[in-house]
Amino acid sequence: MSNKLSLFPPNTTITTEGQLTLNGHAAVELARQFGTPLYVYDVATIRQQIRAYRQGLARYAGSSLLTYASKAFLCTALVRLMTDAGVGLDVASAGEIFIAERGGADPTAMHLHGNNKSALDLREALRAGVGRIVVDNADELASLTKMAAEHGQPVKIWLRITPDVAVETVHEYTVTGTADSKFGFPIEAADSVARELLSQNSTIELTGLHVHLGSHFHDAGPVAQALERLLDLAAGWRHEFGWPFSELCAGGGWGVRYHPDDPPMPVEPFVAGVTAAVERGCRLRNLSLPQLILEPGRSLVGQAGVALYTVGGRKVMPGGRTYVSIDGGLADNPRPALYRANYTAVLANRAGEPETETVAIAGPYCETGDILIQAVDLPAAQPGDILAIPVAGAYQLAMSSNYNAALKPAVVFGEENGVKLIQRRETFEDLIRRDV
Amino acid sequence: MSNKLSLFPPNTTITTEGQLTLNGHAAVELARQFGTPLYVYDVATIRQQIRAYRQGLARYAGSSLLTYASKAFLCTALVRLMTDAGVGLDVASAGEIFIAERGGADPTAMHLHGNNKSALDLREALRAGVGRIVVDNADELASLTKMAAEHGQPVKIWLRITPDVAVETVHEYTVTGTADSKFGFPIEAADSVARELLSQNSTIELTGLHVHLGSHFHDAGPVAQALERLLDLAAGWRHEFGWPFSELCAGGGWGVRYHPDDPPMPVEPFVAGVTAAVERGCRLRNLSLPQLILEPGRSLVGQAGVALYTVGGRKVMPGGRTYVSIDGGLADNPRPALYRANYTAVLANRAGEPETETVAIAGPYCETGDILIQAVDLPAAQPGDILAIPVAGAYQLAMSSNYNAALKPAVVFGEENGVKLIQRRETFEDLIRRDV
Repeated sequence: MSNKLSLFPPNTTITTEGQLTLNGHAAVELARQFGTPLYVYDVATIRQQIRAYRQGLARYAGSSLLTYASKAFLCTALVRLMTDAGVGLDVASAGEIFIAERGGADPTAMHLHGNNKSALDLREALRAGVGRIVVDNADELASLTKMAAEHGQPVKIWLRITPDVAVETVHEYTVTGTADSKFGFPIEAADSVARELLSQNSTIELTGLHVHLGSHFHDAGPVAQALERLLDLAAGWRHEFGWPFSELCAGGGWGVRYHPDDPPMPVEPFVAGVTAAVERGCRLRNLSLPQLILEPGRSLVGQAGVALYTVGGRKVMPGGRTYVSIDGGLADNPRPALYRANYTAVLANRAGEPETETVAIAGPYCETGDILIQAVDLPAAQPGDILAIPVAGAYQLAMSSNYNAALKPAVVFGEENGVKLIQRRETFEDLIRRDV
Repeated sequence: MSNKLSLFPPNTTITTEGQLTLNGHAAVELARQFGTPLYVYDVATIRQQIRAYRQGLARYAGSSLLTYASKAFLCTALVRLMTDAGVGLDVASAGEIFIAERGGADPTAMHLHGNNKSALDLREALRAGVGRIVVDNADELASLTKMAAEHGQPVKIWLRITPDVAVETVHEYTVTGTADSKFGFPIEAADSVARELLSQNSTIELTGLHVHLGSHFHDAGPVAQALERLLDLAAGWRHEFGWPFSELCAGGGWGVRYHPDDPPMPVEPFVAGVTAAVERGCRLRNLSLPQLILEPGRSLVGQAGVALYTVGGRKVMPGGRTYVSIDGGLADNPRPALYRANYTAVLANRAGEPETETVAIAGPYCETGDILIQAVDLPAAQPGDILAIPVAGAYQLAMSSNYNAALKPAVVFGEENGVKLIQRRETFEDLIRRDV
């Protein structure tokens, strides 16, 4: 139990009565008040992660900007939180731009990603004044050049580089930086497109380079290696065209601990590895330091999130396996089915009890893949118990569905002085609102 | 191309100008009118599949009921179509009951599934008068017994049996009938719970048995084998308690062809295999024939659906792989990422051209797993081309998400006399409607 506790937000405690409390709020009480499945985000944990990134970036000798990869989880309340904290936004569609605007984000601190941005995505980015467009391919550059001319204003871009560096992630789906990836320009393609861009007068201003190697890794080495390749490009263009190279986005993708067996993954080594690589690489190439941008998602909000479910029943199978059923699963969290993600859980109302059995946690959906956890030690769970799954903050609700007409869960922000509903649970009426 | 065409609705043709037409409607025209991604359901194909099941069931010497596994895709228009055709509904949550009611379904022709039905699911089923509750486990039977007593009316149930028969499906997630499954009663548990139920006076009336071995299989043999075990149970209870055994639901799960390499999977062998097994098994055990219920999902609506996308760009990687990007993917169809589902595609506006290259079809989402097709032969696709993916009718929209703030696609019903919007595309406002 104690090693599970370390996965929850740091202000999580267990009372002498065995109640799991999140920053002073009893999980059971939150479940009662808002219903389950419930996603609780601990705001202090998000702020702490922002601080950790900031402190690391403060050691960088150049300027820096922290942005949030909003694909991890996005709603207007989270945009406000990030914006108030001075964190920019990495957005990936016109929809994300819309939510960011509604949440009051500063568009100049936003950059737009996407391997296949639609005309609408680009148009909305120009209209909203999104600070940087991260150009992924030559077709897009051509479209954007045309649109920028019509728009009548210079457009600042980064090129997304695919440096052909592999990074060890937990699942092949989360690797993005190899040469055989749908994302970005391979080195030579980037070189040729940039040379063309820099040798002409264009409404497109190339201000920087971007690389993102993958999601959920925990070794900064490959990023440093990839940055070397970007700096080689930058040095060449600087030499030949006097290119200023004012911005460098090193991506995100730093992992989080999901399970007690996972090694600790503080963000410090990632940030330190990146800043050191950029400083050293620029020194060696006689480049002045660009503004360094990071775009973490999972590591900013993952640990802050706790998913609460109600236990429905238990079933002991002839083979000896015991299933404990809960009221959420594949629909609110497809990660175990998609990535074989390995979670743990505690009984929030009996967190002080010895964990006497190993069970599988099954969701209620008509799908054998709807098993959130294959094996977890728990006290013997009974109907009505509240199951808490830590590290639920990233890529769960963002990828959630309405499978089996499931309602998307309620989401609350927990702070020391209270708990605030930030997304209401879907209603049955929501399920048919698009029906004509 | 011609073998790809056989995957589309049978009324699909290619004009001499190379235009793919769905029951007379040019795919390109539909894409222009409704935008992309667009899901087109050919109503005639759904009706044809209903007829195929009906004809098979007509050869059964007892009575029968065809029901639709609404988890495959559900909206009020589809409920109306099924209901008008006299097809009942297999529902799996209070949400599905709600949609079914709004679509005008006959509640008495509905049965409720679920391995962890909530109190709300059961309450709503009783309120709506859902014909049968398919009881999954002993906890649920206890809850239901209590609720039925409060409800003051007898409740008819089936027991879901897990016969420990494996069926060969394309992915382990889609196997449900093995002993180590979260679904249903193992044989011995079913026997003991039924004996208790039949030896007492209860508001719960056990009218039948249910088995569902898995999803997307294409050999009726295991189903026949599983039915033997159910008939053994029924014969025992009949002998001991005079149990009438009036209903037998043999589940669904029959597969469809997704790819030209898949073998043909007409529904006839499935229905014939099931009816023969029931008739023979009942004869051997001296049982009168129960009403036979089937609950197909994928095989009723899969082939009817065609997904239309617009090509955004193309990218040739150093390793030689070519990515063609489209405006949908993981968000509207997570099946390739979840199950490694193998799809094919055609260029709807150039369906007559030679297929000169092998490409990967990439969605626009920030996720390496967002590859809808790993390798498909196409003419050299250009931005603006319309890509049509056949067999898009089942478990795509039903499992769709808003990842990267993607908008859920528009859905239309195509009929000979016109095309009707049945679900509007989501709007940006829909993305924040739950934000408080």
